Amino acid sequence: MIGTGPGDLAHLTPHAKKALEESEVVVGYNYYLTLLKPLLENKKILGSGMKREIERGHMALKEANTGKTVAVISSGDPGVYGMAGVIWELIKTTGSSLEVEVVPGVTAATAAAALLGAPLMHDFAVISLSDLLTPWETIKKRIEAAAVADFVTVIYNPKSIKRTHQIEFLRETFLKHRDPHTPVGIVKNAYRPEQEIILANLHNFTQQNIDMFSIVVIGNAQTYQFNDKLITPRGYRL
Amino acid sequence: MIGTGPGDLAHLTPHAKKALEESEVVVGYNYYLTLLKPLLENKKILGSGMKREIERGHMALKEANTGKTVAVISSGDPGVYGMAGVIWELIKTTGSSLEVEVVPGVTAATAAAALLGAPLMHDFAVISLSDLLTPWETIKKRIEAAAVADFVTVIYNPKSIKRTHQIEFLRETFLKHRDPHTPVGIVKNAYRPEQEIILANLHNFTQQNIDMFSIVVIGNAQTYQFNDKLITPRGYRL
Repeated sequence: MIGTGPGDLAHLTPHAKKALEESEVVVGYNYYLTLLKPLLENKKILGSGMKREIERGHMALKEANTGKTVAVISSGDPGVYGMAGVIWELIKTTGSSLEVEVVPGVTAATAAAALLGAPLMHDFAVISLSDLLTPWETIKKRIEAAAVADFVTVIYNPKSIKRTHQIEFLRETFLKHRDPHTPVGIVKNAYRPEQEIILANLHNFTQQNIDMFSIVVIGNAQTYQFNDKLITPRGYRL
Repeated sequence: MIGTGPGDLAHLTPHAKKALEESEVVVGYNYYLTLLKPLLENKKILGSGMKREIERGHMALKEANTGKTVAVISSGDPGVYGMAGVIWELIKTTGSSLEVEVVPGVTAATAAAALLGAPLMHDFAVISLSDLLTPWETIKKRIEAAAVADFVTVIYNPKSIKRTHQIEFLRETFLKHRDPHTPVGIVKNAYRPEQEIILANLHNFTQQNIDMFSIVVIGNAQTYQFNDKLITPRGYRL
């Protein structure tokens, strides 16, 4: 399970590159396979579309069970809402004794943070707003806790074409506990050619064009905007 | 501000390596400079000890103000309790117009998670227990919120020789909301030769040898141990 980091090969670690090179089969979401193309020559490639994680997991296990070395790729880090959990869960449920390794990568939260400035310099919470696999009541509870305890908050899967009300609930909840001017950063397609960075605030951020390729970072009570950057003070006396 | 990832050069991204190569001066915590040694030939090296972040920030700005290209290194990701915030804050307070870039790296939380299995497959909170720069009341509030809302919780700076009660408060708080058998993973010196991985549970984890080089990961209500791995289910029906 290899994390390929954000964007292109510039963020792929040598450890991840070596693991890819040693693999005979590479399994991944089609779009991410395209980004890795230069490294995939002479390998068996098994791609599939979005939301096909279980299918890709089974494909990978099937190949590995024939004795092949198989790479399962995730953009970012495979352990953050990625393929690492899927593979471990399948290994457990199928009683497999395959040897596996998780190769970490630069995760979307810190890639977005790097582009925004330094918003994650203090305690933060990471929440996915997708209720496909998680009861909405659980997500609501976490949104409320993050808002109350003044966590910098990173949102994955903030909004899709069909799923639009969750982010409005989040906004309303945060507005009960944080100033409407609290800075909010939105990063789309970090480190890819189509990268987009939007600076907004808690009052107006849901009016921005947010989609499933966006990471939303909401500042804590101390976060401020300086030029085009968001900075959360660590607490030093300067 | 360059994130060098965990451990040795195997986790340094090509982007970070290139940024280092292009630098004339490299500023960092002494120990991390040692790990990067092969890449630092013919460069001016400015190291200092622990807790000297502000000093290093000023050294870096001083060099940069003479027109030099300066790399400020952080292990892991520079934007997570690292040097990125320090530099941005100093740039703001000194009114500097230097051009700066944050280069993300594999952060300690996901490096630890990769070694533990897949504990961060669901919403998580990251909390530093160090109250040097943060009021203890703020940290307590965040511990309580993370416990109540069933976040997988990653603890940075869990305990030092002088600072030992915070982690006991955390344990007691979590025990009010989570089963004593909840799996807890402790990773020390991830991807370094002296790496150590300890599996424990909420009841007994503070009896382990935890120090400032440890990352502690507390599972959510669904996290389970499978062989020597911690897995947090994503919610798929398998």
